[in-house]
Amino acid sequence: MRNLLLTISYKGTRYHGFQVQKNAITISEVIQLKIEKILNHKIELKGCSRTDVGVHANMYCVGFKTPKDIPNERLIKALNVILPSDIAAIDCNDVKEDFHARYDCKKKEYIYKIWNEKYPNPFLDELTYHYKRKLDENMLNIEIKDFIGTHNFRSFCNKKKGRNMDDSIRTIYDSSVERQGNLVIFKICGNGFLYNMVRIMIGTLLFIFEGKIEKGKISWIIGRQDRSLAGKTISTKGLYLNKVYY
Amino acid sequence: MRNLLLTISYKGTRYHGFQVQKNAITISEVIQLKIEKILNHKIELKGCSRTDVGVHANMYCVGFKTPKDIPNERLIKALNVILPSDIAAIDCNDVKEDFHARYDCKKKEYIYKIWNEKYPNPFLDELTYHYKRKLDENMLNIEIKDFIGTHNFRSFCNKKKGRNMDDSIRTIYDSSVERQGNLVIFKICGNGFLYNMVRIMIGTLLFIFEGKIEKGKISWIIGRQDRSLAGKTISTKGLYLNKVYY
Repeated sequence: MRNLLLTISYKGTRYHGFQVQKNAITISEVIQLKIEKILNHKIELKGCSRTDVGVHANMYCVGFKTPKDIPNERLIKALNVILPSDIAAIDCNDVKEDFHARYDCKKKEYIYKIWNEKYPNPFLDELTYHYKRKLDENMLNIEIKDFIGTHNFRSFCNKKKGRNMDDSIRTIYDSSVERQGNLVIFKICGNGFLYNMVRIMIGTLLFIFEGKIEKGKISWIIGRQDRSLAGKTISTKGLYLNKVYY
Repeated sequence: MRNLLLTISYKGTRYHGFQVQKNAITISEVIQLKIEKILNHKIELKGCSRTDVGVHANMYCVGFKTPKDIPNERLIKALNVILPSDIAAIDCNDVKEDFHARYDCKKKEYIYKIWNEKYPNPFLDELTYHYKRKLDENMLNIEIKDFIGTHNFRSFCNKKKGRNMDDSIRTIYDSSVERQGNLVIFKICGNGFLYNMVRIMIGTLLFIFEGKIEKGKISWIIGRQDRSLAGKTISTKGLYLNKVYY
């Protein structure tokens, strides 16, 4: 039995996140059906991460097993023929028998893209969050560093039914903000993320820019373990799972 | 009576081009209704150019008259609140009484974007044409120069009912091909363009790359005034009206 790790990229706008849900179309469902169609047998698909409704992915990994000896390159090609145009297969590799797309993931990098211009961008509407006032990327790049380290991120996690809140400790390895023309790009790399964590982090940084939260307060908010002290959960429009590390 | 020139930008995917048509949603229709809603009177809208179904515009100008003294900046803001997210108003200026968005246009620049990678790009699917084989942008940049000059471009014009084919002479001021990472960008600037002209030019360049048309043949094809000698009419997916000069 071969154990395959497939890398895909997708525009999340039309989907209800990755994992299978009742009454909603998800990436997992679409990709699983297409793989099964090509392999001509049922598979169990493991995703590298849960993702919120509407989140995009530049890189997302899925694992599945097959006895078929189809070359990886041909599987990618066949998938790209039958996948919808908002999902692309970009890589596929054989991995060890016990390799798991989710549990073997060492770290993940998310990026958040803001279209920072007075007027909207008709080409980037589904791919960025539109913020009109000119952001101070240098200030934000200083503030965002306070997330780095191993902390209890309960202040940056929305409650969700059925989710265990006990284990809220995560490590952020790196974080930064940079401007590329009219785009402001936030980057956060960590060993894992709580429910809506990145979106609340970005929302908090925007509150700091707007003076609704004082500068230098992020460490204090983390310490208080109180969601109400952090900023708003920003839209998923600009959120991308950017890299997955094994 | 004020004569206004409004600059917009739009993603053409959902629309049947600019000009009003029966039974099809067009940019013209949408923008006219929204302007009328804000000004609270009927207007006659003049577009700077006809555009094919699905073509995008980084810059497109429309002219209309109004007795209202609404500040231009406020008109832009109000439009961006009520326009659909694939159309943006980006500039507005008072122009001379007899200024006409189309007839006073001195030149127009079109660009064509090709996503030139083995795998599709789920984020650029509606915004670029996907071409898998690695293009030779240096060779194409030499070939495309043969379009420059004043020529009868009948070989690069599709027949359309009701369109007069007599006047097929146009001047191309400049043309180029460059690579930006996985994107290959074609740029063509001229005093006017025939029906499907840019799309046939790009299709012809791809035929040259593929060896279906010999290198150095563009001038000869122009001279023959025979549509069947040029390449295919490429998809509108990657076509943008990029600049309009007055």
